[in-house]
Amino acid sequence: MAAEPTRIRRLPERGTTDRATIDAILDEGFVCHVAYVIDHRPVIIPTLYARDEDRIILHGSTSSGITRAVRRGSPLSIAVTHVDGIVVARSGFHSSANYRSVVVHGQGTLLEGEDHRHALDLTINALIPGRLGDVRGHTDLELRQTATIAVPLDQVSAKVRVGPPKDDPEDIPTDTWAGVVPMSLIPGLPEAAPDLLPGIEIPDYLKPYKRSPRDT
Amino acid sequence: MAAEPTRIRRLPERGTTDRATIDAILDEGFVCHVAYVIDHRPVIIPTLYARDEDRIILHGSTSSGITRAVRRGSPLSIAVTHVDGIVVARSGFHSSANYRSVVVHGQGTLLEGEDHRHALDLTINALIPGRLGDVRGHTDLELRQTATIAVPLDQVSAKVRVGPPKDDPEDIPTDTWAGVVPMSLIPGLPEAAPDLLPGIEIPDYLKPYKRSPRDT
Repeated sequence: MAAEPTRIRRLPERGTTDRATIDAILDEGFVCHVAYVIDHRPVIIPTLYARDEDRIILHGSTSSGITRAVRRGSPLSIAVTHVDGIVVARSGFHSSANYRSVVVHGQGTLLEGEDHRHALDLTINALIPGRLGDVRGHTDLELRQTATIAVPLDQVSAKVRVGPPKDDPEDIPTDTWAGVVPMSLIPGLPEAAPDLLPGIEIPDYLKPYKRSPRDT
Repeated sequence: MAAEPTRIRRLPERGTTDRATIDAILDEGFVCHVAYVIDHRPVIIPTLYARDEDRIILHGSTSSGITRAVRRGSPLSIAVTHVDGIVVARSGFHSSANYRSVVVHGQGTLLEGEDHRHALDLTINALIPGRLGDVRGHTDLELRQTATIAVPLDQVSAKVRVGPPKDDPEDIPTDTWAGVVPMSLIPGLPEAAPDLLPGIEIPDYLKPYKRSPRDT
């Protein structure tokens, strides 16, 4: 992610099209960034997503920018990034971040009927694994007000940086500390809604909230 | 971030152009997503950034996709998003995420000379606050191999969702738990590089690693 322009210096940062790596990164997350084009300009938006086998499901309102871009035929570019650490190198040049990232390029398709309903269910389960059985069914109005968009995982790749800083050999014998500060997106204790009826327990799937595959 | 298409349902999700809100979101982060356009298609890439007063500084190699896009004159769209929680609503429709997000649109300018050097320094300090005095100066080769890009904070807005789920009134008297699972990107204990010389202590600015303004 930092400036590491030559081949040898890029070693710790690896690109891959391995689907197991890609799927693990996608399944760990729930927020992506989506880019589309309007009037020759890029527009980027954070949104929720779910992976459904060989495709990404986005959802939003029927009038959202992403939905309108898909209707116009704009291709999409989607990124999911997990920040895993700060790479504290002895030079600014090699200071960086550890991360795992997937980028998908493709055309989105608006889903309809049972596909749409199924995609909404997947989105709930991706956001809160185990939740689906506890929420009521979608109303017809909700189904009409919501759009779900599928983007195939055809043009997809992952990029991963792991491990300690890769300093230049001449920088190593200094008295400057170097290493990695690990970072994780960590769930806290669930906080009940103010309008929760008394006596309702936190469900097991939130004790603690966890995501696959990191925690399984 | 979820499907909340009508005015009343969107209440917890607020857009703003307030610069104090925007700056606080930008200063808390260090990873952004950048989108540009090539051959009428959007391309999205995660990268490191820093805020420098009224502009965003991106940096990368001189041959990176973002750098080439700026040279071609492509506008950029940049997003910084902090995930603050999972909104566990009684319906799938109102299930969502709490987040704070900034989106910037604009034309990037490649920096040169002292501006370039200063931008690199800012990037180090944004990634590791307090670090700048501990790293050696940039070499001429590094300065030549690295590109820094400034994007003005002119077309910029923030969007924030906070608070508990906003369920439909008829869904509240159920025995389904509802609330929020808070989420934070939390630094762990610094891990020394394998090639660190013996006896070098972790510097104070990493005990613990912290970012402004969340922790100040």
